[in-house]
Amino acid sequence: MPGTDRTQLGPLVTLTTDFGVDSHYTAIMRGVLLSICPQVRLVDISHRAPPQDIRYAAWILEEVVWSFPVGAIHLIVVDPGVGTNRACLALEVEGHIFVAPDNGVLSRVLARRKPRWSVRLENPLYRGLTVSSTFHGRDIMAPAAAHLACGVLPGDFGPPQEPTATLAWPEPRREDNRIVGEVLVVDPFGNLITNLPCGEIPPPAEIVRIECGDTQIPYFVQTYGDASPRQLVALFGSHNHLEIAQVEGNAAESLQAHAGAPVVVHLREVSAR
Amino acid sequence: MPGTDRTQLGPLVTLTTDFGVDSHYTAIMRGVLLSICPQVRLVDISHRAPPQDIRYAAWILEEVVWSFPVGAIHLIVVDPGVGTNRACLALEVEGHIFVAPDNGVLSRVLARRKPRWSVRLENPLYRGLTVSSTFHGRDIMAPAAAHLACGVLPGDFGPPQEPTATLAWPEPRREDNRIVGEVLVVDPFGNLITNLPCGEIPPPAEIVRIECGDTQIPYFVQTYGDASPRQLVALFGSHNHLEIAQVEGNAAESLQAHAGAPVVVHLREVSAR
Amino acid sequence: MPGTDRTQLGPLVTLTTDFGVDSHYTAIMRGVLLSICPQVRLVDISHRAPPQDIRYAAWILEEVVWSFPVGAIHLIVVDPGVGTNRACLALEVEGHIFVAPDNGVLSRVLARRKPRWSVRLENPLYRGLTVSSTFHGRDIMAPAAAHLACGVLPGDFGPPQEPTATLAWPEPRREDNRIVGEVLVVDPFGNLITNLPCGEIPPPAEIVRIECGDTQIPYFVQTYGDASPRQLVALFGSHNHLEIAQVEGNAAESLQAHAGAPVVVHLREVSAR
Repeated sequence: MPGTDRTQLGPLVTLTTDFGVDSHYTAIMRGVLLSICPQVRLVDISHRAPPQDIRYAAWILEEVVWSFPVGAIHLIVVDPGVGTNRACLALEVEGHIFVAPDNGVLSRVLARRKPRWSVRLENPLYRGLTVSSTFHGRDIMAPAAAHLACGVLPGDFGPPQEPTATLAWPEPRREDNRIVGEVLVVDPFGNLITNLPCGEIPPPAEIVRIECGDTQIPYFVQTYGDASPRQLVALFGSHNHLEIAQVEGNAAESLQAHAGAPVVVHLREVSAR
Repeated sequence: MPGTDRTQLGPLVTLTTDFGVDSHYTAIMRGVLLSICPQVRLVDISHRAPPQDIRYAAWILEEVVWSFPVGAIHLIVVDPGVGTNRACLALEVEGHIFVAPDNGVLSRVLARRKPRWSVRLENPLYRGLTVSSTFHGRDIMAPAAAHLACGVLPGDFGPPQEPTATLAWPEPRREDNRIVGEVLVVDPFGNLITNLPCGEIPPPAEIVRIECGDTQIPYFVQTYGDASPRQLVALFGSHNHLEIAQVEGNAAESLQAHAGAPVVVHLREVSAR
Repeated sequence: MPGTDRTQLGPLVTLTTDFGVDSHYTAIMRGVLLSICPQVRLVDISHRAPPQDIRYAAWILEEVVWSFPVGAIHLIVVDPGVGTNRACLALEVEGHIFVAPDNGVLSRVLARRKPRWSVRLENPLYRGLTVSSTFHGRDIMAPAAAHLACGVLPGDFGPPQEPTATLAWPEPRREDNRIVGEVLVVDPFGNLITNLPCGEIPPPAEIVRIECGDTQIPYFVQTYGDASPRQLVALFGSHNHLEIAQVEGNAAESLQAHAGAPVVVHLREVSAR
């Protein structure tokens, strides 16, 4: 785009909440952000994390934020502990800035990364005029994201504080000739995304069968189009994890499967060598 | 943001409709707005007012618009009377500009405020080429919002006309030792937001019990985290009204409560003084 | 807006997918678009096409895109054939640019229009670093839309290729004294939009009755307000097609009608002339 000076582009602020799609609470935060930092550019990541489901939100963030450009500010308001003494933090990881409650929602983003800085949001100068006990997204976190977007320095918000909250995360287990995992999340198509990374699944020739709950998944395919409509398939999905899907259908509905449902990959018995 | 000239920021236009989330009718209005005023910046307020529920939309607007910066243009298309002789108006209130049908949807915004100017949208120059009888959002109101955003003066749209439509609004009643209100709206978490302003509720020591329909609400708390999961609580919510909530649950579902459900605050009997 | 140089406005990219409202897959594409072309301005058209329903998406596009300004780039990811050998294309029609799979989703847009140019998206320079077999929206089409937005020339993406896929489309039939059509789509209000263009319906005096399935629609009106609440009406809708609606209600629910339901307009018998 000739003539565009990139320094004039407004800062990006992404929004992730559990307020539900099209919530007026999100709209209030948009207003707060634009009032404090008029040049901010707002982008929605997700608002349909089940209310107060920190694990779902933590997963979404890790899957989505790294597709955004360095310098983006990610505002995350999934905050069942609002009004308790959990801290609100701002921190930087690999050039991305996060504003979120210290409740584990950043635990996937931080699983293998260290924040460059992390501060507690305390300075009343950069909060709303009044701070309610029920909506810190509006009163503390949106104002912080907007002030960061407009150039306030991290140290001005409060003292350094690293995130402390952790989140139990289901890790796959290897048991003899089985790899035992579970459904992490159900995506909008009803595909079941498991906690089994593609890199830990052996080649198809070594797989005897794959089960989700009590149901055997008959096909292991490369893409949805490789099987006929309505067939249940396992495949390596776009998140680099094993997925269970139903071709042109909804696997979650067909299998009545939810997050937490067991997924087992049975392997060929290896004779002693 | 050094180097950013704020006069170059595109004008903000917010969108409030009852078209449902992700409606293609909203998308058509976005296209109309951007075609007439390419520099406009669009922000969604809410699209999930129940179809033709003017009261819900009126409430949303009052709760949300004042968080936006002065100068914002609020386009509101909740318009059950489309094609009848109700007027479409543009008006300014406290530095915010509203474009809406004259059907009471602005009645909360105007409850304690006077418009600085208010005009009827009549000039065919600032309407679509053809005006249907079913979609004045596309044909009259979005074009007006876009032309206002691009600098057309209010007087150019048509003659001065104040809003005339009113909207019945449930006001709380004081009856002996009771304050009787009702649920105004159910928020996306299933919290029941009542028409009882915090300022009119006496301190907890004077409250005997709170009922929503036939159900007694056992706890009066300061924030959600003050009670255990699944407990029903009353609290002063972020809208400065009494709310009924279920901790980590959905009060509307648990109580089968809808807008209009009675909420009664029983007060300690005051001996004659 | 004085002082705004329109050449500095970021290019518009609209998003149409079947990912569902508020999908994190859409959020990933937003990140990819902004990472490649930071000045892009993103606008949602629709994400609630039923999964893999090419016909619904094709209809939405034809109804919506022409309201956007010339120069807009329309990114369409409704792609049941992902991972098969269907091509991904970029093409220009009447000054609008489309990026979509070659699966018929553009068939309404192209029904009476010829692309000025059309190319196959092949150049690995303008794709993601890796290309999955399950998410070409992220890996091929969003990168192409972003590179087009930033000025890459069509010929740089790959060889010329016209769209080849077609889509069966229900056309109305004239049978003696009847015009036989069907419901094309159900809109967010539950209005039933038919495939009968207003221009092909004779004046009311010549119409005996209108039926949707087994139900006779008692009123033919000009706008919703012309009948009483709950009445079923037929009218010429904002899409210039015959619609069946229920005043202040939901015709689709009341009639249990879906896309494909027959709609018949019975005409007065014309005596031999």
